[in-house]
Parts: sequence; structure tokens; C-alpha cells
Amino acid sequence: MSEEMTAQKVQELLTRGSYNRWLGLKVIAVGADSIEIKATWREEWIISPERRFTHGGVLAALVDVTADWALVTRTGRGVPTIDLRVDYHAAAMPGDLTARGRVVRFGSQFSTAEAHVYDAEGKLLASGRGTYFTAPPKG
Amino acid sequence: MSEEMTAQKVQELLTRGSYNRWLGLKVIAVGADSIEIKATWREEWIISPERRFTHGGVLAALVDVTADWALVTRTGRGVPTIDLRVDYHAAAMPGDLTARGRVVRFGSQFSTAEAHVYDAEGKLLASGRGTYFTAPPKG
Amino acid sequence: MSEEMTAQKVQELLTRGSYNRWLGLKVIAVGADSIEIKATWREEWIISPERRFTHGGVLAALVDVTADWALVTRTGRGVPTIDLRVDYHAAAMPGDLTARGRVVRFGSQFSTAEAHVYDAEGKLLASGRGTYFTAPPKG
Amino acid sequence: MSEEMTAQKVQELLTRGSYNRWLGLKVIAVGADSIEIKATWREEWIISPERRFTHGGVLAALVDVTADWALVTRTGRGVPTIDLRVDYHAAAMPGDLTARGRVVRFGSQFSTAEAHVYDAEGKLLASGRGTYFTAPPKG
Repeated sequence: MSEEMTAQKVQELLTRGSYNRWLGLKVIAVGADSIEIKATWREEWIISPERRFTHGGVLAALVDVTADWALVTRTGRGVPTIDLRVDYHAAAMPGDLTARGRVVRFGSQFSTAEAHVYDAEGKLLASGRGTYFTAPPKG
Repeated sequence: MSEEMTAQKVQELLTRGSYNRWLGLKVIAVGADSIEIKATWREEWIISPERRFTHGGVLAALVDVTADWALVTRTGRGVPTIDLRVDYHAAAMPGDLTARGRVVRFGSQFSTAEAHVYDAEGKLLASGRGTYFTAPPKG
Repeated sequence: MSEEMTAQKVQELLTRGSYNRWLGLKVIAVGADSIEIKATWREEWIISPERRFTHGGVLAALVDVTADWALVTRTGRGVPTIDLRVDYHAAAMPGDLTARGRVVRFGSQFSTAEAHVYDAEGKLLASGRGTYFTAPPKG
Repeated sequence: MSEEMTAQKVQELLTRGSYNRWLGLKVIAVGADSIEIKATWREEWIISPERRFTHGGVLAALVDVTADWALVTRTGRGVPTIDLRVDYHAAAMPGDLTARGRVVRFGSQFSTAEAHVYDAEGKLLASGRGTYFTAPPKG
């Protein structure tokens, strides 16, 4: 189904969810087993008033969404996350984020995908991978 | 420093961050190497209009925060997350969430803590663990 | 099928594999959704001649096996590991190891289980959790 | 110190440990922030007599060793593993294994590295990443 999965189509599917809209997600590009997504910074992401880092939970969400939707040319939809692992590499200062996702292995029951999150200067802030439930929906 | 770390004191520290306030976090109890935190459901958490599950990124944030602050009687503060793993056990339907955190091992450089997230009926929705950087801050 | 799953029966199943035999695994107790297994130290486990710690790969294997077989009263067999996380808490000096496993959540397709590994004095050396493929085998 | 870290030198350091020797590890190539290592199959790796897959604990050890030693041009030695995550992609049939490791991020206190394990035909069997303690040794 990969031919239908343009960035615009994925953008529509992805932003049906209110949390994804709240993250200001924009699908930049969809490739074979890969995706690039931007997230739009907002003041509510802040971990504390002095250290104005973006909360690790926001970065975790971005790793999860990006790895999940890297599978979209195979799945045609977002799929359930079985488990998620995130490594934090550097403090994320205020600003939009870019995430790049890639399929590690696609399987008929469950699949592994990974994502890397960068700031506007291309600095790696966080990365990780998840296991996704990619069995076809019943019925 | 455990005597000072009442639920009220931890509540003040925790909610200085705007993302923690956005999650509607309320510190219910602080014990020796343990903590209980509630999160207040909001419409923005939803994964899609039809399947109104709470987004896995919100659950990941709650696992991270709760495991991190389970360390607070040792650390006196929130500490940097080095890495995080979250397992998703059941779809989280709309409603407030309760998370219980526990220290697995406290170390002078880095520590392991875990958290479990439940719905109002006590059903386990997600759980996980993180590695935290617990070296004393440089003076 | 839990009534049949005595420690002796699990011991027979578990040690059909040569790596499990090489680890000197002995099933001490099988409970409802839990298990206790011992591993018998051997010189080949050593990470280096000076620091005679047990290799992290041996501890990872023990976490994996113990979490997997904590599921045995549900599965009746060892099941495929989908993914594994291990946290290392302390150097494992030469000596036998005790591992205790517990089911976190049992599911019809995949399940989460955890294990903790201790030395002879009860010191926690490593712990972790895995996702296991618990769908019934295809007939 | 990268100039000194030839494959031969790393081979000497790596195989001082008896478990690494038992795994039949051979350092094929050492690059800037990368490494390639082979492991030599042995009958003791088998998970069961019928399904002669290599045990997940052996693959986990190989992911750990390869990610750890991908850091060697920075560290000059093997360093303690803080935590390890392994995804299993396909059953590993009897045969030697090739593992390729890469640094994800090098830090002054802790670092992230990853590894992929392949069979002789280049099929991806397992992959994963670890957090390593890369602070300089005291004294």
C-alpha cells in the first residue's frame, strides 16, 4: 500500500489524535520504511522554569510516534506499541524538534522500529526503539 | 533528607515544570524509596477520536516522572533520565491515572527505579523502568 | 495447566537445551506466575582474569530464562523472547546465582515478565524484564 | 588513543576474559566508533535438541560485547554495562555469527552504543543497544 502513503495522507491520519495535534506534528517526508516528522515547541513542554529543557516524556512520545509511523507504508495506520525504549543524549532546549524513523525489522505479528530526535542545529537529543503489534486487524 | 520530603513538598517541586502541571500531577504519598502520583485526564491525551485511548507518550511520561521521583528521598530533586523502558499492558480509557514508583537500586552515580500505572479500577495499564543520573550536582 | 508444572517437570523441560545445562540451571520452586532458578558458577563466566566478575551476557541469559519460565504455568513450555532489558546493579563475584521471576502481565499474544538475580548473600546483582510471544503454537 | 586500537590489540584485550574466549570472539575490524566481531558457533549454544536455535542469552552477550567494544577507540578498554536492551528478529540457526557495533553517543559519564547480529548469509538475527559507564577510571 506504499503508493498511497504520501506525507499529506499520513499527516491526515496522524493528526486525527488530539495528543499528536497538541505536539504540533508535521509529516515532512514518507519513504520506504522511513519517515521524518517535525514537532512544534510549546511552553507547556518545559521541565522547570530555570532549566527550560523539554520534558523527557515529550521526547519519548516523539520517539514512539515516529518509530510507529515509520511502519506506515506496511501497516497503513498507526499500530499498538508493545514496548518502548528511549535513550536521552542531550538536554533539549526550547525549539522545534525533528524526528527520523526507520523500520529495523518488519514481521507478520510484531515489528521493531527506531527513531532519532534532533534539534534545529541537527544535534542528537534522544533516540530509541519500540516493538509494535503489526498483525493485521481482525475482521 | 527523607524527613523533609513530604508529599506537599514534592508536589511543589514537581509542579514547577509546566509539562508536569499540564499532566495534572498530584503527589498522593511519599515513602521510603517509593511514591504515588495521580495524573488528571484531559481530552488532549486522546490517540484518535474513535479509539479514545490515552496516548502511549503520556503513559511513558508518567512512568518516567514516577520512577524518577521515587528517588526523591535520596536525591531531594528530580534527576536526569539516562534511559527509559515502558511496557504497554492494556488500552487506557479516558480517566485519571494512578502511578506507583519504587527504587530498584540506588547508586552514587546512577540508579534504577520502576513505576506501574493503573486506571481508577486498579487495572494495570503500563509499567516500566528507567536509569537515572544520581551523582550529586557539581557545586 | 499449572497443576502439572512441578519444579521437577520444569527442570526436565528447561534442561533439554544445552546452553541451559551449561549454565547449570536448577529449578528450585515453581509458583503461580513465579519461579526460582539457581545457576551454577563456572570459570568460563569470567570477564577478565583480574576482575573476576561474571560476564553481563551470563546475567542477561539468566534474566531472560527466568522471566520466560515464570510464564510456564500459563504456557507449559519456554516461549520465544521478543525483546529483553537488563539493568546491572553490582559486580557479580564468583559464586552460584539465584534468580526469581514473576509475570507482570499475561496476554493472549504477548506477555511481560521480570526477573531479579541475587548472589549467595542475597545481594541484588541484576534485574530486568522481557516481552514474550505467548500466542498458542499453531497446530 | 584511536591509533593504537588495531583489531589485533582489541582482540588481545577482549579475549583476556574466559567467557569471551568461550564465545570464540574474533575482532575483524576496528573503525572510528565502530567494530566488527565474529563469534564461533558451538553445540552448547542450543536452546533445545529439536529447535536447534542459538539461545537468546548468547545473542544478548554478543550485542553487549559488540556495543561495548565499539567504544574502544574512546575508552581503550571494555567498560561496565549499565543496562542492555536486545530485540530478537529471527531464529539463529547453527553457524557462526557476525556482529557490527556503532557508537550512538559518547559522553564523559555514560554513553550509548548499539550492535546488530547477522548470520553467515547476512540475515539480521538480533539487535540492540546499551548504556555504558564511560567515566575515566579513578586513580
